[in-house]
Amino acid sequence: MNNSAQNCQAFDLVIKNVQLITLDKEHNKVPYGLLEDAAIAVTDGVIQWLGKSADLPDHPCKNVVDGEGQFLSPGLIDCHTHLVFAGSRAAEFEQRLNGMSYKEIAEQGGGILSTVKATREASFHELLKLAEQRAKTLMREGVTCIEIKSGYGLNTETEIKMLEVATALEQSLPIDIRRTFLGAHAVPPEFKGDSDGYIDYLINDTLPKVHELGLADAVDGFCENIGFSREQMARLFAEAKKIGLPVKLHAEQLSDSGGTALVADLDGLSADHLEYLSKKDCKRLSHSVTIPVLLPGAFHTLSETQLPPVDLLREYNVPMAIGSDYNPGSSPLCSLKLMMNMACTLFKLTPEEALLGVTKHAAMALGLDKVGELKVGYQANFCLWDIQHPAELSYTYGVNPLTRLWIRGQTCFL
Amino acid sequence: MNNSAQNCQAFDLVIKNVQLITLDKEHNKVPYGLLEDAAIAVTDGVIQWLGKSADLPDHPCKNVVDGEGQFLSPGLIDCHTHLVFAGSRAAEFEQRLNGMSYKEIAEQGGGILSTVKATREASFHELLKLAEQRAKTLMREGVTCIEIKSGYGLNTETEIKMLEVATALEQSLPIDIRRTFLGAHAVPPEFKGDSDGYIDYLINDTLPKVHELGLADAVDGFCENIGFSREQMARLFAEAKKIGLPVKLHAEQLSDSGGTALVADLDGLSADHLEYLSKKDCKRLSHSVTIPVLLPGAFHTLSETQLPPVDLLREYNVPMAIGSDYNPGSSPLCSLKLMMNMACTLFKLTPEEALLGVTKHAAMALGLDKVGELKVGYQANFCLWDIQHPAELSYTYGVNPLTRLWIRGQTCFL
Ligand SMILES: [Zn+2]
Ligand SMILES: [Zn+2]
Repeated sequence: MNNSAQNCQAFDLVIKNVQLITLDKEHNKVPYGLLEDAAIAVTDGVIQWLGKSADLPDHPCKNVVDGEGQFLSPGLIDCHTHLVFAGSRAAEFEQRLNGMSYKEIAEQGGGILSTVKATREASFHELLKLAEQRAKTLMREGVTCIEIKSGYGLNTETEIKMLEVATALEQSLPIDIRRTFLGAHAVPPEFKGDSDGYIDYLINDTLPKVHELGLADAVDGFCENIGFSREQMARLFAEAKKIGLPVKLHAEQLSDSGGTALVADLDGLSADHLEYLSKKDCKRLSHSVTIPVLLPGAFHTLSETQLPPVDLLREYNVPMAIGSDYNPGSSPLCSLKLMMNMACTLFKLTPEEALLGVTKHAAMALGLDKVGELKVGYQANFCLWDIQHPAELSYTYGVNPLTRLWIRGQTCFL
Repeated sequence: MNNSAQNCQAFDLVIKNVQLITLDKEHNKVPYGLLEDAAIAVTDGVIQWLGKSADLPDHPCKNVVDGEGQFLSPGLIDCHTHLVFAGSRAAEFEQRLNGMSYKEIAEQGGGILSTVKATREASFHELLKLAEQRAKTLMREGVTCIEIKSGYGLNTETEIKMLEVATALEQSLPIDIRRTFLGAHAVPPEFKGDSDGYIDYLINDTLPKVHELGLADAVDGFCENIGFSREQMARLFAEAKKIGLPVKLHAEQLSDSGGTALVADLDGLSADHLEYLSKKDCKRLSHSVTIPVLLPGAFHTLSETQLPPVDLLREYNVPMAIGSDYNPGSSPLCSLKLMMNMACTLFKLTPEEALLGVTKHAAMALGLDKVGELKVGYQANFCLWDIQHPAELSYTYGVNPLTRLWIRGQTCFL
């Protein structure tokens, strides 16, 4: 487990007396890739060395932190959020529990279109302020990288505004942001009854402009019998591929609509939700680079009963990621740690799978390398945890065990 | 809604420009007992006046707070916790998800008895430090009163130590604590196979000593086929009644064991869990002062499927309380706000019922008057919430909407 540090004359940061949750099972074939009595050294925001404390190279370092025996893990990654939005759906939540149907709520202007209305009306600065508050909440739990989708604009102007807010967030906070264009989230009122026409509009107007402004890292859609068809998504994805943007998809959440096969065939980044994933498409995933992203927050909020096929995914050795899916409709739960608990409690993932799901596998789902593990050459994003056992991160919830957070080797004050 | 304040020459605290979630539907027959454009005035930690801002009496006051249009509710009350304990059950959580059975875990010393062992071994100060951290976590969400049970000692010495920790907590933090003696939580190793002998020990040794030291406000037990029988609990409760302590019971969680009827017949404070409550006993509750306490955290953690009979409880007009049941085994979730969300999402309570469950009805479940509502003569425990709608307190979770907390009219710094 010793890695040489010969190219490094001085370290910027050394954290010693820690138990490293490396998650690097290639080098360290024990649960969690755990390395006890360890130290880790950083220069220029990158891990230069890690190993047993006794073997720490004798380089000069002005910033030596005593971890007091606590656990150090990679920074957490939330690979599926919709955290830029305005408005609240609390009244609608209440109406539903008072017996009003989804149809009645939609007819009075509720549902996703109420969020679209509020997001269109909100200013850039209002949206940024709300997004900052939510991102900080995630960071206080140890999140260092967040994927953010558009999809509450449903017109070129507001989709761009949302992605600009996501871009600005990376300037105002020290986190890494991945921006996903989700124009194909729902059909806007302007195209009511003409979803094909809306896909044309996205292809001819919104996507080219978003791409020209460099605002998106990927293209996503909602492939479902109540969303867009596989054929419609295929048309949009063909355009995404043309301009070199990777694709991902909300797939198989409420029915088996074939979205996973589509995205896997296109070497997409991820297929998300997957409650209704078939065995055939599970196998297909295993032959592709596409990562399944499980979203227990939506499962919980929608009181779903169809579980994603976790045993099958294990059988085919498919790495599973977990996201918060934080959004005002189906997952108003702004907590990735709660999702780790729910992934275990609802989906029966092991705590190690849950942690991999919000680190290494979440990085894969975003197409990122050099994050999500503790490994030489990787970004120095660290969570220091006051816990007795790595499983505690999924097992218990409420008392925040995060004692310190570093991003690119810099301490974050939260 | 105007209440005269003629006996009051000066106010200690006035909060103006707030929307009062009074929950006092006697005086204010609208949802949440909501009073808009309102103010509230406090002297000596007690509400002296509340009403429309325009009607605020012209008394001198040095401490006037502008609520900026936010919502002000009574402080939250967690009426069922086990938050004094040592040790972690994370490893066991992991073993279970890796396929180990409850039996195997118990055989290797896991389960509740591992918490008993750790709690017996922990010092008073270790336990107090842990309890403080947990209580502060609850307070940051707006909790101003916490019920704490013993029950991880299972011998006189440690049961007393736990209740002393709970008592000390009230000195070290500004919250109100209610202490419950839960010696009849499980059979300790010393009485293995002799649960009757253990009940005798509690009756003859532990309970008298606990009472002599003034350490308990109520007596509780775990009435279940895997716990204590109704007859055993009846024996212990007879002693509690003799010394004047009210009773409550963990009842009907995993089976219909008749505990609710027992506690209702004794005018007990509460019957808690109640997933298997029968219609007959539901009716019995409606004729007693006993409050049903629903515990969605345990339901979630244990992946239960039998729902408590919420519709029946509504039909019989029985006020429902909600607790966190925070404990290291079946509800390692230290969050009362998460329980409000789960009460709605899992048990289909309305957001108003969920809020009543952690305020007014939780106060009733603890036998407390003068807390849990905003009403003249009531304790000045207030949460100021940055929300758009009272339902938001149950609907969304993660971003903390609490902007300020007062207990007995004093600001709490968290
Ligand atoms: Zn989503
Ligand atoms: Zn309990």
